[in-house]
Amino acid sequence: MTPHAFKSFTRAYGLNEIALVPSHHTLDPELVDISSTIAGLKLDIPIFASAMDSVVSPKTAGIIGKHGAVGVLNLEGVQTRYENPDEVLEKISSVSREHYVELMQDIYQKNPVKDELVKERIRAIKSQGVKTVVSSTPQSAQRLGKLAVEAGADAFMIQSTVVSTQFKSKTPEKNLNLSQFCKDMPIPVMVGNSTTYDVTLDLMKTGVKAVFIGIGPGAACTTRGVLGIGLPMATAISYAAAARQTHFEMTGEYVSIIADGGIVNSGDICKSLACGADAVMIGSPFAKASEAPGRGFHWGMATPNAVLPRGARIEVGTIGTLQEILVGPSKTDDGSQNLSGAILTAFATLGAANMSEMHQMEVVIAPSLLTEGKIYQKAQRLGMYK
Amino acid sequence: MTPHAFKSFTRAYGLNEIALVPSHHTLDPELVDISSTIAGLKLDIPIFASAMDSVVSPKTAGIIGKHGAVGVLNLEGVQTRYENPDEVLEKISSVSREHYVELMQDIYQKNPVKDELVKERIRAIKSQGVKTVVSSTPQSAQRLGKLAVEAGADAFMIQSTVVSTQFKSKTPEKNLNLSQFCKDMPIPVMVGNSTTYDVTLDLMKTGVKAVFIGIGPGAACTTRGVLGIGLPMATAISYAAAARQTHFEMTGEYVSIIADGGIVNSGDICKSLACGADAVMIGSPFAKASEAPGRGFHWGMATPNAVLPRGARIEVGTIGTLQEILVGPSKTDDGSQNLSGAILTAFATLGAANMSEMHQMEVVIAPSLLTEGKIYQKAQRLGMYK
Amino acid sequence: MTPHAFKSFTRAYGLNEIALVPSHHTLDPELVDISSTIAGLKLDIPIFASAMDSVVSPKTAGIIGKHGAVGVLNLEGVQTRYENPDEVLEKISSVSREHYVELMQDIYQKNPVKDELVKERIRAIKSQGVKTVVSSTPQSAQRLGKLAVEAGADAFMIQSTVVSTQFKSKTPEKNLNLSQFCKDMPIPVMVGNSTTYDVTLDLMKTGVKAVFIGIGPGAACTTRGVLGIGLPMATAISYAAAARQTHFEMTGEYVSIIADGGIVNSGDICKSLACGADAVMIGSPFAKASEAPGRGFHWGMATPNAVLPRGARIEVGTIGTLQEILVGPSKTDDGSQNLSGAILTAFATLGAANMSEMHQMEVVIAPSLLTEGKIYQKAQRLGMYK
Amino acid sequence: MTPHAFKSFTRAYGLNEIALVPSHHTLDPELVDISSTIAGLKLDIPIFASAMDSVVSPKTAGIIGKHGAVGVLNLEGVQTRYENPDEVLEKISSVSREHYVELMQDIYQKNPVKDELVKERIRAIKSQGVKTVVSSTPQSAQRLGKLAVEAGADAFMIQSTVVSTQFKSKTPEKNLNLSQFCKDMPIPVMVGNSTTYDVTLDLMKTGVKAVFIGIGPGAACTTRGVLGIGLPMATAISYAAAARQTHFEMTGEYVSIIADGGIVNSGDICKSLACGADAVMIGSPFAKASEAPGRGFHWGMATPNAVLPRGARIEVGTIGTLQEILVGPSKTDDGSQNLSGAILTAFATLGAANMSEMHQMEVVIAPSLLTEGKIYQKAQRLGMYK
Repeated sequence: MTPHAFKSFTRAYGLNEIALVPSHHTLDPELVDISSTIAGLKLDIPIFASAMDSVVSPKTAGIIGKHGAVGVLNLEGVQTRYENPDEVLEKISSVSREHYVELMQDIYQKNPVKDELVKERIRAIKSQGVKTVVSSTPQSAQRLGKLAVEAGADAFMIQSTVVSTQFKSKTPEKNLNLSQFCKDMPIPVMVGNSTTYDVTLDLMKTGVKAVFIGIGPGAACTTRGVLGIGLPMATAISYAAAARQTHFEMTGEYVSIIADGGIVNSGDICKSLACGADAVMIGSPFAKASEAPGRGFHWGMATPNAVLPRGARIEVGTIGTLQEILVGPSKTDDGSQNLSGAILTAFATLGAANMSEMHQMEVVIAPSLLTEGKIYQKAQRLGMYK
Repeated sequence: MTPHAFKSFTRAYGLNEIALVPSHHTLDPELVDISSTIAGLKLDIPIFASAMDSVVSPKTAGIIGKHGAVGVLNLEGVQTRYENPDEVLEKISSVSREHYVELMQDIYQKNPVKDELVKERIRAIKSQGVKTVVSSTPQSAQRLGKLAVEAGADAFMIQSTVVSTQFKSKTPEKNLNLSQFCKDMPIPVMVGNSTTYDVTLDLMKTGVKAVFIGIGPGAACTTRGVLGIGLPMATAISYAAAARQTHFEMTGEYVSIIADGGIVNSGDICKSLACGADAVMIGSPFAKASEAPGRGFHWGMATPNAVLPRGARIEVGTIGTLQEILVGPSKTDDGSQNLSGAILTAFATLGAANMSEMHQMEVVIAPSLLTEGKIYQKAQRLGMYK
Repeated sequence: MTPHAFKSFTRAYGLNEIALVPSHHTLDPELVDISSTIAGLKLDIPIFASAMDSVVSPKTAGIIGKHGAVGVLNLEGVQTRYENPDEVLEKISSVSREHYVELMQDIYQKNPVKDELVKERIRAIKSQGVKTVVSSTPQSAQRLGKLAVEAGADAFMIQSTVVSTQFKSKTPEKNLNLSQFCKDMPIPVMVGNSTTYDVTLDLMKTGVKAVFIGIGPGAACTTRGVLGIGLPMATAISYAAAARQTHFEMTGEYVSIIADGGIVNSGDICKSLACGADAVMIGSPFAKASEAPGRGFHWGMATPNAVLPRGARIEVGTIGTLQEILVGPSKTDDGSQNLSGAILTAFATLGAANMSEMHQMEVVIAPSLLTEGKIYQKAQRLGMYK
Repeated sequence: MTPHAFKSFTRAYGLNEIALVPSHHTLDPELVDISSTIAGLKLDIPIFASAMDSVVSPKTAGIIGKHGAVGVLNLEGVQTRYENPDEVLEKISSVSREHYVELMQDIYQKNPVKDELVKERIRAIKSQGVKTVVSSTPQSAQRLGKLAVEAGADAFMIQSTVVSTQFKSKTPEKNLNLSQFCKDMPIPVMVGNSTTYDVTLDLMKTGVKAVFIGIGPGAACTTRGVLGIGLPMATAISYAAAARQTHFEMTGEYVSIIADGGIVNSGDICKSLACGADAVMIGSPFAKASEAPGRGFHWGMATPNAVLPRGARIEVGTIGTLQEILVGPSKTDDGSQNLSGAILTAFATLGAANMSEMHQMEVVIAPSLLTEGKIYQKAQRLGMYK
């Protein structure tokens, strides 16, 4: 008897498994345009700062916005639960490792989100003259979406670990009807996170203006370890880019995709864009800024989960100002500073004049930086061949 | 002359090489059923605790059972050789590394298994009102199977490193006739371990109700290093699942498969189920419980082998109670606690309403967690790119 | 609807992922000729020393040249900016890590390249009776090319991270017309770096006599981390070799290719040649010489970039004289000394009588030295299986 | 124009990349025969001890032989150069790292091989009543072969890093005519090392009775690092096995193949046999014996090379007696002791009754032990996911 077919496993690739190959021409940086228009907002630098308490406060949203990127404020974090969030942030960054999860559960469960604070924080960003984007979970989207519009937000993001248009429940009314929500909202709606072609295409059909791509790979996210769920980013972005193209061919509408998770330096940003992303969302690179609310620490927003915490607090240290990180000049050579300069240089070097050309660049699977080149040499210096 | 064909090597995959991809819908956890019926026993949590002295005692079998999983008692370990096993366990966990193998050979060879203790230990589990499952080697199955039935066990497991239905010997009478044994036993018989399609299908034909899958990958098992034998789990489970399907199509009978070995956290459990397992058997995650008989240590049952010891004693430490490990709440974010909560969340996130739907989830081959994401970042923090 | 095609990723290989397989015969070393004629210059040892300040000074160019290899002098480094470069080199090798980038930007921006010093340094090499090769960026090629010819250089190299024949700019006049430049120059022109078939072929059509291959993998280069750009060397060389062959079939002219970057020991040199390179350019192996201007340190030439530094300073230590490194005798067994002896032995062992036969050797993809053999054993010694 | 074809790279596999899969039956160890007849000599244990000074002396050859394996004496090492080799061995194992290569070059160049000592050492082995096998380089084969026959050796081995039947030289008379040599020698001739199908087949046609397979992977060998040459063992053995089969089909003669290099524990031995080897040759596992001449150290025989040393001295420590290593009982669980017991258990577990059946076992490519299972868990314990 012929054996029943075995389950098949497709290979998926992470960002540190790929490299970009120059095209047949190079460009004068003057001819390069790295801007990206996402959900009607033109970003001079195609970067969103993650809606995480260690990354975006009204203050950092202002600085990031002034440099041409966008900081997304989490409307369900400490900023909207506490009059004085700095006091709370101080506690989080100084608590010992063993009391960390407990403290986090405490902080996020004891104090509810307050309508007045929501509006106050949004206005604090808006008043700095920058693009104002805020995020909410699907559960709170109706309430917070309304407040966001009232306070003048420019775009609204709905985010959960894994999102779909088809949430099945005994009480379906508690599920957000995304199509209706998009129709009702006078400002653009963005949604995430998705990883697959099917879900991304479904989400695009609801009327959202951008879809965030990526599950599992984030620096402060332990979803893959705890749940086994994840899709390496290079492959995930390429799936989403195919969905964007299908949707465009069907409807004529270009819905942006934003790579979100596991992007740790400027090289990763460039790779994400070459895989097809219109922009990236990054957390840990900004958590290293001297102005970051995390004070040298970075943590995931799934941590406070009462029964199944899934985010780690990691010490990222402080490497420079937000300005140095975003537009330089860089004092280091590891891709952690002057992110926009690196993107511009990569576009020019590869011969991509704009985001659309960047999406066409050749991508190869390459041995991880961890095993090739420098590491190999380091191993040799350490005498690992003896 | 054409070269003679070279031996061909098929690629097989381990659990830490794969990741699970969300389907096109998500589920309210209320709609998810993670239970699994194995050998007629309904497990609310699809987890068996390994029949290892460092993991299951009558006491831990009771606690594990009350939370909806099943602890399998090894009928040939210290519990049935010693009136006072705690004294012996204390010795094992405190002996120095260099005297460890010697002590183990001593403990298991000097004191035979005693019929009265076998029955006493089984009754001690039974009296706690939980499902009572016990295990034996093939050599002792006739004798211990009889005692297990008399003492009221609910199911009987036969386990050796590698099992087959066709054991060839000069003295074939010393081999267990598995078909006859299954007919004779009034309680369900489970057997292991197998890794291949052929052997799994053969075993299913004997009348066993469940087959344990996995050779080599266990934390306290050195079979692959010593014998070169093993099959990475993701592939092994997918082979066994195909055998289960073939057997089902031929006979209408659904024989369960249980992934056993190398499963170290909740993510691995979820991956095993998505590859096709009906349940998992885990040792080291329970050896970390404060109630574990191993007292912070974990060791393999092949260690006492007089001439070819193949199990290591590893220090696993203590991370929480069995309750915290099984049903939470979790105080950590590494997938070591609230295993059932993680399984439930994974089902809901992936859109699997029950075990059968979980078996259909998409699996991708992904760069190891050791090389992607967090590790990558850690390497960067450690300056490994300098 | 059929999904839009996903972006495809080709696998590319690094030097530490391959190994060379002996042919069906071996050779007496007497019958082996490892010399290579590049741009009209016959190299007895097919090695160029990188045009980096830590590697080539007029003095080391002399020593290297006398042993049959060629040291390329960077005409835009400290040697042509400072009367007394040793003072500056001393500072670079003794500055602390945190002030390093700043110092470098200072050194290279404050003091311009001086025509007189350019000629003086070239003559200092020339006067030692060795082949004199110098390098320049494309921006300075017109000016420095003229000076090089006047001072008697034998060949002129134009080098930037990524070079192409089609540089697009609003001010195209600032771009170097490579074809015209080659026609105008009375000495052979070499150019780099390239990685792809198309660009290499384009460059060969301009009249250059050699193309340097390799982007990203160098020991003191962080291009891949910062920009995401790179192509592993084994694949890059094989692409370039195909372009050389195409060009040869079209024109009858054999334009050499030189593997440049990420070559750390004699094994890597042999692999590069077997992949198709006519010679290699190496930096870090020479930076370890007692005569090296880097004084035990090695750094990339993109470091001084004012806004986006991309080179690291690494401490390589000092292992022996240039003579020991180039022609032995070797006091070590790690492939860092007697590079020419290793090349000769590899040719003889593989059965390659000359460079052209070496290009035909069989190459296999092999598990990295980091994971096989010695490392595996080391891991075992360290008890990593316990 | 179509690009010229790129050089193609075939994937080759190392022993630590594979695992063995049980067949559909298991065997009582009583029914298993692990013996192997090589060059007319029946080995009860299919293991040769490497012809290395740190491994085989007349004394250890005697002990190894009495247990059913064979120790091969190097006729060009310290044993035949010095009346009192123990004095010299003492020096080698106690010299400091920096003076090691120098000392080795001294020891092997100052004192020539002496005819009388050659015969004396051979007789010292012979007198212990064990199989007496000795080795020589091709250069000395005529002279030493004659002496070996006179002194009563049972088989003669010719070994160099890479051997071929077609050695090309200006002075071809200095090359050994292997066919003639085999005809002239009254005892069986064995030769090595080879890695490819073609060379192995060519060698078999000369009349040798066994071919040693393996270049590069040995613990004390740095050929791959220094020369870039090597072929991972699992693939190399499978190539050689195909040559053996082709030769057998052409001539009816079965010429044995022996896997030599990079075999570090009993698991590797079992894998080598399953890939097709008739026996293995191992060095480092025996260098760990308390009786080993290396006194806790192990070194390659290419080290004394005057201009290009290629062997490292590694400290392997001492783990037990030769008896414990060969036939047990084992005090450890890492595959370093009771090698014959492990082979027997593997045969029985896999269902292989003899060497010929062992050659048919299924082999899978599996994630390295370094990345799966225990290591994965170790990484978790070390908090590498934090």
